[in-house]
Amino acid sequence: MQQEITQAGIDQVMEQSWAAFLQYRNTSVKDRASLMRRIAAKLENSGDALIQTAMRETNLPEARLKNERARTVFQLNSYAEACEQGHFLDARVDKALPDRTPPRPDIRKMNIGLGPVVVFGASNFPFAYSTAGGEAGLHEGVFQHVHGLSFAVGKGLVMHEKTKAVGFTGSFLGGKQLYDWAQERKEPIPVFAEMGSVNPVFLLPQKLSQSADLLAEQLAGSVTLGVGQFCTNPGLVIGLDGPHLQQFIEQLGLKIANIAPAKMLHAGITKAYKEKKEHALSQADVDLVSVSTVAVSSEMDGVPTIASATGEAFLNNPVLHQEVFGPYSIVIRCQNMQEMQDVAAELEGQLTCSLMATEDDMIQHHHLVEQISLLCGRIIMNGVPTGVEVCWSMQHGGPFPATTDVRFGSVGPDAIKRFVRPLSFQNFSNALLPEELKDGNPLGIPRIES
Amino acid sequence: MQQEITQAGIDQVMEQSWAAFLQYRNTSVKDRASLMRRIAAKLENSGDALIQTAMRETNLPEARLKNERARTVFQLNSYAEACEQGHFLDARVDKALPDRTPPRPDIRKMNIGLGPVVVFGASNFPFAYSTAGGEAGLHEGVFQHVHGLSFAVGKGLVMHEKTKAVGFTGSFLGGKQLYDWAQERKEPIPVFAEMGSVNPVFLLPQKLSQSADLLAEQLAGSVTLGVGQFCTNPGLVIGLDGPHLQQFIEQLGLKIANIAPAKMLHAGITKAYKEKKEHALSQADVDLVSVSTVAVSSEMDGVPTIASATGEAFLNNPVLHQEVFGPYSIVIRCQNMQEMQDVAAELEGQLTCSLMATEDDMIQHHHLVEQISLLCGRIIMNGVPTGVEVCWSMQHGGPFPATTDVRFGSVGPDAIKRFVRPLSFQNFSNALLPEELKDGNPLGIPRIES
Repeated sequence: MQQEITQAGIDQVMEQSWAAFLQYRNTSVKDRASLMRRIAAKLENSGDALIQTAMRETNLPEARLKNERARTVFQLNSYAEACEQGHFLDARVDKALPDRTPPRPDIRKMNIGLGPVVVFGASNFPFAYSTAGGEAGLHEGVFQHVHGLSFAVGKGLVMHEKTKAVGFTGSFLGGKQLYDWAQERKEPIPVFAEMGSVNPVFLLPQKLSQSADLLAEQLAGSVTLGVGQFCTNPGLVIGLDGPHLQQFIEQLGLKIANIAPAKMLHAGITKAYKEKKEHALSQADVDLVSVSTVAVSSEMDGVPTIASATGEAFLNNPVLHQEVFGPYSIVIRCQNMQEMQDVAAELEGQLTCSLMATEDDMIQHHHLVEQISLLCGRIIMNGVPTGVEVCWSMQHGGPFPATTDVRFGSVGPDAIKRFVRPLSFQNFSNALLPEELKDGNPLGIPRIES
Repeated sequence: MQQEITQAGIDQVMEQSWAAFLQYRNTSVKDRASLMRRIAAKLENSGDALIQTAMRETNLPEARLKNERARTVFQLNSYAEACEQGHFLDARVDKALPDRTPPRPDIRKMNIGLGPVVVFGASNFPFAYSTAGGEAGLHEGVFQHVHGLSFAVGKGLVMHEKTKAVGFTGSFLGGKQLYDWAQERKEPIPVFAEMGSVNPVFLLPQKLSQSADLLAEQLAGSVTLGVGQFCTNPGLVIGLDGPHLQQFIEQLGLKIANIAPAKMLHAGITKAYKEKKEHALSQADVDLVSVSTVAVSSEMDGVPTIASATGEAFLNNPVLHQEVFGPYSIVIRCQNMQEMQDVAAELEGQLTCSLMATEDDMIQHHHLVEQISLLCGRIIMNGVPTGVEVCWSMQHGGPFPATTDVRFGSVGPDAIKRFVRPLSFQNFSNALLPEELKDGNPLGIPRIES
């Protein structure tokens, strides 16, 4: 067990981070890309020892962790490429117009780093949200790892004067507390907290009538993937009641019954899963549909479970809206499409919303589609929400309370936008401008020029 | 005098705004550009009546208001062009890779509107920060004007559930209060408050030795432009003490003595100017350098004034750091370059910082330049901070407390970034995608494709 960091330790870490920032901000995009590529190569060649350690610490199976490592390597290499491409700089060059009345001075603009960022790692992604790094001859403060379980450590880091932004993945209570502290500072700072989501899946009538069995199979896989420990786990399925939905529920129940329980990330998560699930199932208006019939092998297992309730129950009981982090989902049976819209209107902000729908469904129920698009950061047609691609077009974020800031995401090259801010240079001589803004565009980056 | 809006009135306005949002968000970029161009044309052809009204309401002279109107027309037309160009959409297209393991779905992303925005107008820019609009056959709630002087009106607007962002220009107390209310909401929302800045001007030694008289002339003009009522007014000038700085101060004093007082925007601003200026001048360690010797013509006149103090006084007396909104500036005489760096280190976030410097100055004092670049949103070499170009490369914003969010600005096409957020579309059929993301890029907008 690592030792809890002290306030003096936090001060030291943040002063080192600040010193590293002052050096790192003057490195070129090529140097930063090179750093990311070196970290990727080290991770890729880290062999079995790293995987074995992560297996012990997270209970995740070998294949899952090897996948995550490969994904993290891809992520680092793709961010390195994006860094060199330079879109994130939002470079703009407006040259002087001395003959205009009044004359226009030369003005150029690019994004620069905000400063040290405190990231609260997520236990479900030990590699992807890690502090691997500190290579390439750079200041040793570029990446620093801090250990602490207490609220005091979190508060000390967020309130520190040298902290300029915060990233977090976890519970609403944790994320909102960090957010509130950050706003109480003399200088408020941005907090990007991802705080949970039930990722509703809407089963539209025509699609459901055509594909109930297939949808049940897709959902069963998505609900139980990684023992349900993904922020995009579909915890809520909403359909129009009737024979097709009954068939879907029955098939989903059969699939779930055959999926084996598995160890969750740590004892605290298993405990929370059990308690929240029991609380949901204890509601008078909730029916238990199916529980895995495969034997548990450990106290720490998360047992796949499906519940169901009516649209009316959902509208009247806020307990049914809550995220149950783990392999659990509740199917809401709506009486008619108006009730489905009413259910959608009751939902809070989500990372994702999925629509299982034919083209006709999408056109006929366009008001619902419109409503759903306002609810989330990613809208999916005929697909499950698990599986978060690392690519330019990914938005992994959503309206409050899915995240604290709907304008930013945490996956894909655009995620860097969380940690930069624009700086204009007016009337600088070419020699004194940063490379990114010099005449002739020596780095060949995208620039808007006029 | 217009009547104060009631809470019921606020509810009605916000519900109308929401209804307008639901319609307006589905208009094309061409329709939005067309709306802006129509507003520009109407303003351009609004004739003398508008100018006369604004003169009565703001005490600004005719030429100043005609300039602002022309600037606002240019602004609207340039934003219309930027809207059509579509950079602000940050469109990304990642096509499906069905043969990859695992297969990649088709994902596309673009920015969409956040929702209704409450903007607290600024009295010093009656046209540029106005609510002109409501043309082009769109929902009448697209622009709405609300009148209110009380805190209750501000609070009611910021706390309203349908409000999704806030823009503000004014005092620190006002802006910070709006910010704090917005964070107390169940769903916190972004507040872009511009809350004042002293826009420090650093006189570097070599430049000062070469150009003391010219610098004095430039600064005298900038300090008194528009009766000092610009957020980029240079309220603080910092130089190395010695014969060249003495010459600069003497020349600045002579120029200021000859510049006529003029009416300020309203009685409240004149009163605040007088009080803050008297408070600064009453400090034991502050010397009065010069006051306009031209006769005042009205109780509402702001009288051009220059003060001076040592670097030591500045470091020990926070009163000297405060903004005095009006035609006032204080010159800080530093004993050596270290003291100048110490003064820079004491400064809070600024909209702009200016460096009057030769190339040699910039190289020799690069630590100071580096420090200054972290302080502000726009760094100017050999220019005054007044004069805010409407162009892509303008950053009109800065670190707290200059603004509440250093990552955004309020002038130039990039200012729209304050009010948008990304939405990903996964696995949508081409027919159902928005025009901006369809195959073949029918709108011809910039997209990152892979």
